[in-house]
Amino acid sequence: MKGAVIHGAHDVRFEDREAPRITQPTDAVIRMAATCICGSDLWTYRGVNQLKAPMPFGHEYCGVVEEVGSAVKNVKPGQFVIGSFFASDNTCPHCKAGYQTSCVHRELVAGAQAPRLRVPLADGTLVPTPEAPPADLIPSLLALSDVMGTGWFAADAANVKPGKTALVVGDGAVGLLGVLSAKQKGADRIIAMSRHSSRQKLAREFGATDIVAERGDEGVARIKDLTDGVGADCVLECVGTGDSMKQAIKATRPGGSVGFVGVPHGVSIDGQELFHTHVHLHGGPAPVRRYLPDLIQLVWTRKIDPGKVFDLTLPLSEVAEGYRAMDERRAIKTLLRP
Amino acid sequence: MKGAVIHGAHDVRFEDREAPRITQPTDAVIRMAATCICGSDLWTYRGVNQLKAPMPFGHEYCGVVEEVGSAVKNVKPGQFVIGSFFASDNTCPHCKAGYQTSCVHRELVAGAQAPRLRVPLADGTLVPTPEAPPADLIPSLLALSDVMGTGWFAADAANVKPGKTALVVGDGAVGLLGVLSAKQKGADRIIAMSRHSSRQKLAREFGATDIVAERGDEGVARIKDLTDGVGADCVLECVGTGDSMKQAIKATRPGGSVGFVGVPHGVSIDGQELFHTHVHLHGGPAPVRRYLPDLIQLVWTRKIDPGKVFDLTLPLSEVAEGYRAMDERRAIKTLLRP
Repeated sequence: MKGAVIHGAHDVRFEDREAPRITQPTDAVIRMAATCICGSDLWTYRGVNQLKAPMPFGHEYCGVVEEVGSAVKNVKPGQFVIGSFFASDNTCPHCKAGYQTSCVHRELVAGAQAPRLRVPLADGTLVPTPEAPPADLIPSLLALSDVMGTGWFAADAANVKPGKTALVVGDGAVGLLGVLSAKQKGADRIIAMSRHSSRQKLAREFGATDIVAERGDEGVARIKDLTDGVGADCVLECVGTGDSMKQAIKATRPGGSVGFVGVPHGVSIDGQELFHTHVHLHGGPAPVRRYLPDLIQLVWTRKIDPGKVFDLTLPLSEVAEGYRAMDERRAIKTLLRP
Repeated sequence: MKGAVIHGAHDVRFEDREAPRITQPTDAVIRMAATCICGSDLWTYRGVNQLKAPMPFGHEYCGVVEEVGSAVKNVKPGQFVIGSFFASDNTCPHCKAGYQTSCVHRELVAGAQAPRLRVPLADGTLVPTPEAPPADLIPSLLALSDVMGTGWFAADAANVKPGKTALVVGDGAVGLLGVLSAKQKGADRIIAMSRHSSRQKLAREFGATDIVAERGDEGVARIKDLTDGVGADCVLECVGTGDSMKQAIKATRPGGSVGFVGVPHGVSIDGQELFHTHVHLHGGPAPVRRYLPDLIQLVWTRKIDPGKVFDLTLPLSEVAEGYRAMDERRAIKTLLRP
């Protein structure tokens, strides 16, 4: 089987890999319907995260169950399923509390950019769709595996509620789906920070009411202007740099909430500064599994269309070009067809 | 009039000061019933916070209104009142959201260790008791001005709810009243971290079910042991050092909450570490004004007795000894009688 393997900075290859098979009785093997490229993997692609050895790449997936281990009870061969980038047992105390990405048995799913994938802890991880999906829903269902679930968690962690003012820092795919999530959760006003016209356009389609192109202190000043000097109620931090986190915290009203889902790189928060902002801070790897049943329902009934973030579709064999396009910000997000 | 003035590290004097008077139409002047010494002022007393010039000291107060400015409508001379260490208008958007310590017109109250005190923004700041209080309630009413309101905010920010497991880091007066607050909010289990027998005793009186004497990683391991490896649901951080904050975050279960009210000194939070804990973080200067009406009611009906934290009572003229006793941890908290 051929799949994507990263060998080093800017070096993703489509090459022979061992075919996945059941190794634990709790495993499933799925045949990929579609997979994609995650913005968080650009940290590795750009060499910011160090690689010790070549690594099968990709962690977003949906497809049809081909085979299950002897202990798997909830999913059956032939079902169309979606799972999170972290496999989880969905029974431990952290899972029961809704934090499946902190599952005591969690296991990172890796190597999804391939025609087949082994998914550990299949019963806890995979959620089937009501039936085999029509082809046009596949991109939106695929988005639930990570990017949409992450935008949704950002909105949830930022405590978005009907009538609130939400601010989204970051115009990557997660930020754009944070806009969609804030809209779906009833925010009255949604301010998207973006300086790229194609992303601004999609943000507006997803429900943004205001676009702010300024950054840093200027950006914060604009948000204050737009909110009568008060600040935003709910801020979705979808980047993960020190600057974006500062911007998010400073633009939040006292007592407001920052949901941070951009994997932090070089972020250090001064305790005394945070103290005086009165901001709520919550984030982490999105517990996508918690949201999957509801989000599948929203996609299935065509209430949301997160698949719109895919503005480039390539055959899986051209995965390297998919990374280049995202690295150079020519594409928001690349869908790969096996 | 004689009152407390801090001149430098370990140098508090009881000396002549200008008598307070109405300087703004929104001011009130109160005659002090009792005042006290705050743990947060030990940072200044110990020289950690730098002083630019001698400063009237103390910010916790309750007493009888003597005079009000021409614009004051809600409080009248003769009423017994309690206020927060931050004066607030109680009408701005931050006040309306319940964050009066972030009031756009907030003003630090200073010089409360004196027979009389000017309180700015009297209408927004002062809350009267139902009538003149009996003498034995004065310590508990005084505690509401800061220390009890701060412990209450810690429990609120840590999301303490009936049935939860709460952990209190810090056995100062705020931490002990954090225990009382967690109990009052219905926590099932309350773990107090303390290695001082007199403080352990008071923690138990206030509702602690478990005492942990270990600190740092050992302390965290003990909390994990006590919670079946899960961690505490709600953690009240009542110290403000880098070590106590780390301990608080590490002892919290994923998805749990840390309420931090110890004024941070040298606290820096690594973004990526916080990300992977899945912890909610909220804190700041306690919005005591939000809680005053309810807390007065609880004291008035003798449901809570936060005044128990005062284990040393001195005449105001011996304020310097009061600071020494707290600095050397001979006293939990010193009440001063004018």
